[in-house]
Amino acid sequence: MLELLDHIGLFAFAISGVLTAANRNLDILGGYIIAFITALGGGTIRDLLLNVDIAWMTSFSQLLMVIAGATVGIVFRKKLRSLRRTLSIFDTVGISVFTIVGVQKGLSHEQLAITAVFLGMISATFGGLIRDVLCNEIPLIFKKEVYAIPCLLGGAIYLLGDYLGLGDSAWLLWLSMLFIVTFRTLAVMFSWKLPLINEIN
Amino acid sequence: MLELLDHIGLFAFAISGVLTAANRNLDILGGYIIAFITALGGGTIRDLLLNVDIAWMTSFSQLLMVIAGATVGIVFRKKLRSLRRTLSIFDTVGISVFTIVGVQKGLSHEQLAITAVFLGMISATFGGLIRDVLCNEIPLIFKKEVYAIPCLLGGAIYLLGDYLGLGDSAWLLWLSMLFIVTFRTLAVMFSWKLPLINEIN
Amino acid sequence: MLELLDHIGLFAFAISGVLTAANRNLDILGGYIIAFITALGGGTIRDLLLNVDIAWMTSFSQLLMVIAGATVGIVFRKKLRSLRRTLSIFDTVGISVFTIVGVQKGLSHEQLAITAVFLGMISATFGGLIRDVLCNEIPLIFKKEVYAIPCLLGGAIYLLGDYLGLGDSAWLLWLSMLFIVTFRTLAVMFSWKLPLINEIN
Repeated sequence: MLELLDHIGLFAFAISGVLTAANRNLDILGGYIIAFITALGGGTIRDLLLNVDIAWMTSFSQLLMVIAGATVGIVFRKKLRSLRRTLSIFDTVGISVFTIVGVQKGLSHEQLAITAVFLGMISATFGGLIRDVLCNEIPLIFKKEVYAIPCLLGGAIYLLGDYLGLGDSAWLLWLSMLFIVTFRTLAVMFSWKLPLINEIN
Repeated sequence: MLELLDHIGLFAFAISGVLTAANRNLDILGGYIIAFITALGGGTIRDLLLNVDIAWMTSFSQLLMVIAGATVGIVFRKKLRSLRRTLSIFDTVGISVFTIVGVQKGLSHEQLAITAVFLGMISATFGGLIRDVLCNEIPLIFKKEVYAIPCLLGGAIYLLGDYLGLGDSAWLLWLSMLFIVTFRTLAVMFSWKLPLINEIN
Repeated sequence: MLELLDHIGLFAFAISGVLTAANRNLDILGGYIIAFITALGGGTIRDLLLNVDIAWMTSFSQLLMVIAGATVGIVFRKKLRSLRRTLSIFDTVGISVFTIVGVQKGLSHEQLAITAVFLGMISATFGGLIRDVLCNEIPLIFKKEVYAIPCLLGGAIYLLGDYLGLGDSAWLLWLSMLFIVTFRTLAVMFSWKLPLINEIN
């Protein structure tokens, strides 16, 4: 089930990569490369930091989901723009899964609690960060969107549950993902923003 | 022989790095750093992803070729601009070697076929990609040049030959490299371009 | 003692990250992320290249110093701008420590001499380089500042001492760090600049 959601997330991230690439007027191959980096970049950095095998390199189904998402994104990009709300749901499911998988992977490799939460956030957000850098933009997560905060808090909730001995409970998994999805959705709906550094008196 | 060509490629990539750095008005050290990253960045990412030792770190001759290429690039940069066509030949030889070495290295570490081809393309193109990001430009391979496609196809040809049991044959090596060199040269000569995402109806 | 100085360096680098982030009008979380990447990015790349465990991931005190530096940077950023000279001293201590620790780590993993010196420079400068790329600027070290040269030379001095059998001597450590601090301070005081590539005849 977690794996299914993970694949849905990859699909959604690949679409978001292609749409950003189209905005920057890239060619088709550029679109596919940006899609791969958006979808798989966060997990790649997580695995590099943990010094373990990179997950997607041996997963044909992950690669397939990215290719499928990018292709759908290219072919249906006009229709997709009007479906932005629907897309955003998949994307939000994606970040929630990526976060929790990242935290779990950190914990299973005996990392510090704070490091595990960071790894969760990195898994969910650094693909988009590299996407923005490659498209020559200041990363969205730095100024315009409440994107990383739900990941950090949701990851912390999972971690807390794990310390309470609920690490194997499916409930904990769903609760922490639901928290991320809800927080992120509210943030989008009500245009929540973090204060800018320059607004701190 | 492959190693000789690999070193020629490093030399050419170092020059291309320095010339880009000169265009952005960088200082000499900036030129050397960009040269190193252009020439060695792709192979570094390949080796990081494979979780093996980084090739250049223990290769004095590779480091020397980059230093030599960067120095030649700085000193003769005016003459080199008029020799662009000659340079481009070395550069093309470079990407063909980097691609095939990348695919071979992927296969020898038991990666998926598609992953091995990606590793070939990454070896050949991601150094230039990081060069462009550091120089604050949208990477060339995303919009202006047919650069990665010959690598992907040439890598696929090598892979096909390997499946047919010709993996140890020098013929296969030369054939797939020749394919990349020819395809890339024709693309430059006739200004081939991939369609933009926004041109897909 | 070296560890204390290392922590002072992390604190100073975190402040420099936050101030850059404030200049680009990022939000608070963006400031913290840039602070982490500025302070820990160079060491992360060093450890990735060496294929060893990433130092900060298991060091609660390193993470704490970065969080403290970023928080101080955000809260006192107006006062800090007038204290630029004092800040710059901590920053300079930071690059000197990061360089020597990087060279030592390279040598202890049996790298080539030249590779060890590069690792020292990478430890000291690539965090700032990634900071600049994320803030969509051409990295400072490429054009405006004599920043990497003192690291390369100081690293070479340490290396030379090590070859002369002084590798365990505290004197060598202090001498090479003092060299970096002095060189860098003079460079700032007298606005030393490297020649641009385009100024080479």
